[in-house]
Amino acid sequence: MSSTYALAIHGGCGNVARGRFNAEQEQAYLAALRESLQAGEHLLKQGGSSVDAVELAIRIMEDTPLFNAGRGSVFTHDGKQEMDASVMEGETLKAGSVAGVTQLRHPVSAARAVMDHSTHVMLISAGAEAFARQQNLEFVTSEWLFDQTRWEQYQQALAEDRQFMDHASDDQKYGTVGAVALDQNGNLASGSSTGGITNKKHGRVGDSPIIGAGVYADNRNCAVSCTGEGEYFLRDVTAHRVSALMEYGGHNLKSAASAAMASLQNIGGTGGFIAVDRFGNIEMPFNTEGMFRGYVAEHEDVDVRMYQT
Amino acid sequence: MSSTYALAIHGGCGNVARGRFNAEQEQAYLAALRESLQAGEHLLKQGGSSVDAVELAIRIMEDTPLFNAGRGSVFTHDGKQEMDASVMEGETLKAGSVAGVTQLRHPVSAARAVMDHSTHVMLISAGAEAFARQQNLEFVTSEWLFDQTRWEQYQQALAEDRQFMDHASDDQKYGTVGAVALDQNGNLASGSSTGGITNKKHGRVGDSPIIGAGVYADNRNCAVSCTGEGEYFLRDVTAHRVSALMEYGGHNLKSAASAAMASLQNIGGTGGFIAVDRFGNIEMPFNTEGMFRGYVAEHEDVDVRMYQT
Repeated sequence: MSSTYALAIHGGCGNVARGRFNAEQEQAYLAALRESLQAGEHLLKQGGSSVDAVELAIRIMEDTPLFNAGRGSVFTHDGKQEMDASVMEGETLKAGSVAGVTQLRHPVSAARAVMDHSTHVMLISAGAEAFARQQNLEFVTSEWLFDQTRWEQYQQALAEDRQFMDHASDDQKYGTVGAVALDQNGNLASGSSTGGITNKKHGRVGDSPIIGAGVYADNRNCAVSCTGEGEYFLRDVTAHRVSALMEYGGHNLKSAASAAMASLQNIGGTGGFIAVDRFGNIEMPFNTEGMFRGYVAEHEDVDVRMYQT
Repeated sequence: MSSTYALAIHGGCGNVARGRFNAEQEQAYLAALRESLQAGEHLLKQGGSSVDAVELAIRIMEDTPLFNAGRGSVFTHDGKQEMDASVMEGETLKAGSVAGVTQLRHPVSAARAVMDHSTHVMLISAGAEAFARQQNLEFVTSEWLFDQTRWEQYQQALAEDRQFMDHASDDQKYGTVGAVALDQNGNLASGSSTGGITNKKHGRVGDSPIIGAGVYADNRNCAVSCTGEGEYFLRDVTAHRVSALMEYGGHNLKSAASAAMASLQNIGGTGGFIAVDRFGNIEMPFNTEGMFRGYVAEHEDVDVRMYQT
């Protein structure tokens, strides 16, 4: 048994550059990250499981319109909010995910329910929502999920026939949220939740609900949660790649993270990920201007950042 | 440039045991496999690409009701046929997939169109069909896709409240089809297509449309296509695991295939996969009673099998 715990989260990456946000906006983002970390840490400190901490940290980020997940998710080409999420636990290698859900307050909890209460790993669209309803998960109205800023960006995207990766009027910012954790029992877990990309068409699914691409957790290696241009993470199978570099390549977390970023970059991918290993080491690499991120560990204060340093 | 080509296909695995099929049924299965391999080989021999050969070999298997893909796909709990498919090419690491499509004659060609003609990797449900319509892919009626045997099994599954992995009244047989190929230019490709499981609920998606889990192709390593209880392949990220074992673990195809099967078995997974490397080596491991499979290579005759030996 390990005596330590650790939790890392992200709120998306991209064109998060100094000068782009005013002081008030910066404080709002950092406060939201801090709130998520503190809630997760509280749980881990009391002996809670890594998967509970991951779910809770993500639920808090889903509830704020600042991030592109849950409330405040971006709009599809058809003016809908279609969300994807996943979770995985490293002890059992069990996983759950949902894609294309539209009325759930907490897509990550639907993914958790798939993992815990179904014989399946992945459920999509109306079927996933029917399952969530059976599980008595919280449904919300489109009005509740609605965010005026996102709506305006959608209108702009429609007018310009462009697709935005995030809520900003800027296609270089990706708003997925994610969390990885190590609990006091030495168990790793990871999770992810996203609203996808603004003005997306044709039921596009990115890496967030895909086990191996957007998330992976294996107690022997690490827990990983990705954010960025999902298509590249899908082709690169980035989250599992980090784990495989440790398992088969003899890498430690730091060098595995670096090699996985090189692999992603090699096919032109932009983004980053957060990762934690069974010793509580944390890596948060990204090749964009910034990434909303933070971590907390035993005997360490909460640390939240959005720019490169 | 390699001077050789190779093609392997599968038509699902599970309780494919001697004594279960009469001679006529055996011949029908083996003839269908042979037809698929011969068409793919014809293309490869003339210098065609591995991804074209994979698509063609799968299209032929989709058209026969013998396998659980395309025509003759199994029925969901709601009495629908929901199909998933994917393709990946090892040179560019480009990939495409569709999940939950209901009216397409060739889901694998929709996956190919996503790879070639969209900026995305994965499209689901109605959105995927809208894209396929734009791409002028062939749509068919439910009557065309219908198969009486599958319908009866669905009725039986409904009555017994069971889920069958395949068209047989037996939950130990999985009917996904798949193909992997090496072409004369040394390029690898893989693909997969399935109707999922009988009486499946809630938009369940297995490993077939998931890059990394059900399929993977990387010219440096291998091309892989899986079949079996999809949930285990999703959690194990089996196709990418074979590739990672070669890339990071220094394994050749044979030992990578063996290690990947051990990993799958370790979490209780049943099934198998076909794999080819850049030298034209082929592996077709499985831990079920049988697997519909076959291969052909330069200077080698078509070889088709369904039982363990």
